Amino acid sequence: MGNLCNDNIVTEFEQSVINTVGEITSNYRKSELICLNKTKHLPNRSEIIGIIKDLRKIIFPGYFDDFTLGYSFADYYVGKELVDIKERLFRQVLLAISYNNSEDITIEELEKKSEEISINFIKKLPYIQEMLLMDVQAGFDGDPAAKSKEEIIFSYPGLFAIYVYRLAHELYTQNVPFIPRIMTEYAHNKTGIDINSGATIGKYFFIDHGTGVVIGETTIIGDNVKLYQGVTLGALSTRSGQQLREVKRHPTIEDNVTIYSGATVLGGETVIGKGTVIGGNAFITESIPENMKVSVNNPELKIKETKKPDSKDNPWEI
Amino acid sequence: MGNLCNDNIVTEFEQSVINTVGEITSNYRKSELICLNKTKHLPNRSEIIGIIKDLRKIIFPGYFDDFTLGYSFADYYVGKELVDIKERLFRQVLLAISYNNSEDITIEELEKKSEEISINFIKKLPYIQEMLLMDVQAGFDGDPAAKSKEEIIFSYPGLFAIYVYRLAHELYTQNVPFIPRIMTEYAHNKTGIDINSGATIGKYFFIDHGTGVVIGETTIIGDNVKLYQGVTLGALSTRSGQQLREVKRHPTIEDNVTIYSGATVLGGETVIGKGTVIGGNAFITESIPENMKVSVNNPELKIKETKKPDSKDNPWEI
Amino acid sequence: MGNLCNDNIVTEFEQSVINTVGEITSNYRKSELICLNKTKHLPNRSEIIGIIKDLRKIIFPGYFDDFTLGYSFADYYVGKELVDIKERLFRQVLLAISYNNSEDITIEELEKKSEEISINFIKKLPYIQEMLLMDVQAGFDGDPAAKSKEEIIFSYPGLFAIYVYRLAHELYTQNVPFIPRIMTEYAHNKTGIDINSGATIGKYFFIDHGTGVVIGETTIIGDNVKLYQGVTLGALSTRSGQQLREVKRHPTIEDNVTIYSGATVLGGETVIGKGTVIGGNAFITESIPENMKVSVNNPELKIKETKKPDSKDNPWEI
Repeated sequence: MGNLCNDNIVTEFEQSVINTVGEITSNYRKSELICLNKTKHLPNRSEIIGIIKDLRKIIFPGYFDDFTLGYSFADYYVGKELVDIKERLFRQVLLAISYNNSEDITIEELEKKSEEISINFIKKLPYIQEMLLMDVQAGFDGDPAAKSKEEIIFSYPGLFAIYVYRLAHELYTQNVPFIPRIMTEYAHNKTGIDINSGATIGKYFFIDHGTGVVIGETTIIGDNVKLYQGVTLGALSTRSGQQLREVKRHPTIEDNVTIYSGATVLGGETVIGKGTVIGGNAFITESIPENMKVSVNNPELKIKETKKPDSKDNPWEI
Repeated sequence: MGNLCNDNIVTEFEQSVINTVGEITSNYRKSELICLNKTKHLPNRSEIIGIIKDLRKIIFPGYFDDFTLGYSFADYYVGKELVDIKERLFRQVLLAISYNNSEDITIEELEKKSEEISINFIKKLPYIQEMLLMDVQAGFDGDPAAKSKEEIIFSYPGLFAIYVYRLAHELYTQNVPFIPRIMTEYAHNKTGIDINSGATIGKYFFIDHGTGVVIGETTIIGDNVKLYQGVTLGALSTRSGQQLREVKRHPTIEDNVTIYSGATVLGGETVIGKGTVIGGNAFITESIPENMKVSVNNPELKIKETKKPDSKDNPWEI
Repeated sequence: MGNLCNDNIVTEFEQSVINTVGEITSNYRKSELICLNKTKHLPNRSEIIGIIKDLRKIIFPGYFDDFTLGYSFADYYVGKELVDIKERLFRQVLLAISYNNSEDITIEELEKKSEEISINFIKKLPYIQEMLLMDVQAGFDGDPAAKSKEEIIFSYPGLFAIYVYRLAHELYTQNVPFIPRIMTEYAHNKTGIDINSGATIGKYFFIDHGTGVVIGETTIIGDNVKLYQGVTLGALSTRSGQQLREVKRHPTIEDNVTIYSGATVLGGETVIGKGTVIGGNAFITESIPENMKVSVNNPELKIKETKKPDSKDNPWEI
């Protein structure tokens, strides 16, 4: 194709890449969401997930780490890790609150606030640890398939989702933007359990199986509550979208309530009273008093005989 | 145990490994699916997932990358990445279409086709980016729990599933085997949202929470549609299996429709008309006209008082 | 701030970290679950997941590996890997059974038992491979959206969950603690499909879409059974918790049964007879005879016209 070095012909492919690059970078300029001067200062998702993973090693030592820890040196290890995690969290919180800084708060003030938030978070860790140990106990007591409490810590998705929720909730209550959501969506991704960090959840909480559980932002859950897979604690309607921010849209579940799989409880004024048991697939939009047993008149089944099995349906049958 | 070097005794364990190796490699020869001469030319799943991850950095710069990008150099970065991604995609597409090459198409023709497919894909990226920015807006407008559009990009599983679907759909429409499915199942894995790459989906699409959503291959979805967790847009019956390939088996959802959690819409001739709202848990197998509100006479609840709470149920209660 | 090196002032932050470290390590001493001398000997979750990943390369060569394998050297590769995996499994099994060793079994006996368990597991691999190839066939025959059997191996979550279940079940039947659960919860995490390793499942098993499926510990499933997303094979009530261990709490599903999405079958004495088809959303707590077709009188829909669409709901409509 002629003299290689002088070959200035732009191929069709090359031209289309050049055009595409131009279109993409031009989109950058059109959208406030990908304003490059701004987005480069967003918090870093991987850093935040790293904090979740490293905290788990401190809260449940021996379960998620090759590091074998003895009592004598435990303070060294935990101390070193906490100082480090506090610093990493500080940086992410600073990014998060600076990004959202519409008023004229100085960088010094933002740093001071991030420092406070991070320290408050660190101080809450022993409390979170104690809550989680109670959640493990609740899981063991409630699940006949649990062979040991250890396997709940190791592998139960319910416990992982609650762990991440309890961390995220501490940042939510301190009004940190972005980070609580990144945390709980990470757990959602891993477990199929979607707990909004704004929810308030008591002690001895347990979610069995868990896939499909949704717990909305303004939900209040008491102590010793147990949920099964597919339970929604949701809002009655969110068609008004952003107009409903800050309004209590999700139910209140009092102490000692059990909600079986697939049940839906909706509405900010709906209260499930203490000790009540909600049966599978119940659909509830009004309050239920204490100590009730709610079950569903399940839709009637139509059962009819089929013609003898069609061999075409089962091509692998001999 | 005798002279070590002359010890020719095969232990029971050694013999059982040797036998097992023989059985496994003999299975290789029996199954067309693990024909080694063939499978070594399959596309590489990790490569394909890598393309999804790297494209996200270009489409939403600043959100998923340590790289801090300014406007001045944006073209360099995007251009370099796109050339690279196009090359990687080309190789995977070539593997995919060559593997399935039953006719006698020459390697030159296969390469030409892969090149065309990859370029067509790259050219579509600015359009996909624009669609996704509209999807982000739809998510923000529709969800009172969304504190910002940024957190939708960062962490909403619905947006991630739509992102991957929109990429995969471009390859599906070009009849690329394997790769679209690998892409959408990767998103399914991460989000619990299962969108078949064959579905046709309009703009301003939003899926809230999302776990358990299934959108079948021949589904058609208009603009400004919103789905909640657990919604199935499925086929009426798939007992005839492969005989149903290519047939429209999944519903059509027109513009401005909202479908609440747990609802099921089945059948290739089922159309949900414009502006209609489908309530939670509805089970629909026939068309619904425009601007309707469909709700469910939920199964009646049976509510009875329980005996006073049994302390055995709550062993942690003092 | 005075002489830097002589500055012995402990800042408020420093003091709060020191306090927090003390509280956390004090929690270590209070809980049997984070008894450091004990937990450092727990099995390693990452190692176990590594075994799952590496076995998949042997069982489905060419699909999950850059390694390109030819027939001539297949024995070398498979042999080397199997010896290695057997050794890694041995170590994890030894940790697992030693941790749970309440009786006075000597380390030699524990090692002998771990060796036996690992060898029995390895010996079962060709059988597991054959079962999985039948599962792939079942998936292909049953799903009109499947373009090829290869994409089922590559990307179907149902097949991945079954793969992990079939491995874990071999360890469950040998009474290995922790490891089967870690395995199946890993698959649950990746797929939203929660199959307890204790379940008994026949050949030609297929789960379509899969998110939300729960299969309990004492479930028995025959040959050629097909499940869809959201199916629960569960227990009637687990409020008695640990008292129900070992009891058959989950249903029996006989050969050639299909269970459509969202259906729930509960109870240890519930039997779904051969060839029966269970419709979507059915809720079943009693046995169904052979060759029946069970469908649901779905809850009646209330359909009413809405006022003309509110433009506020759709702010992006022009």
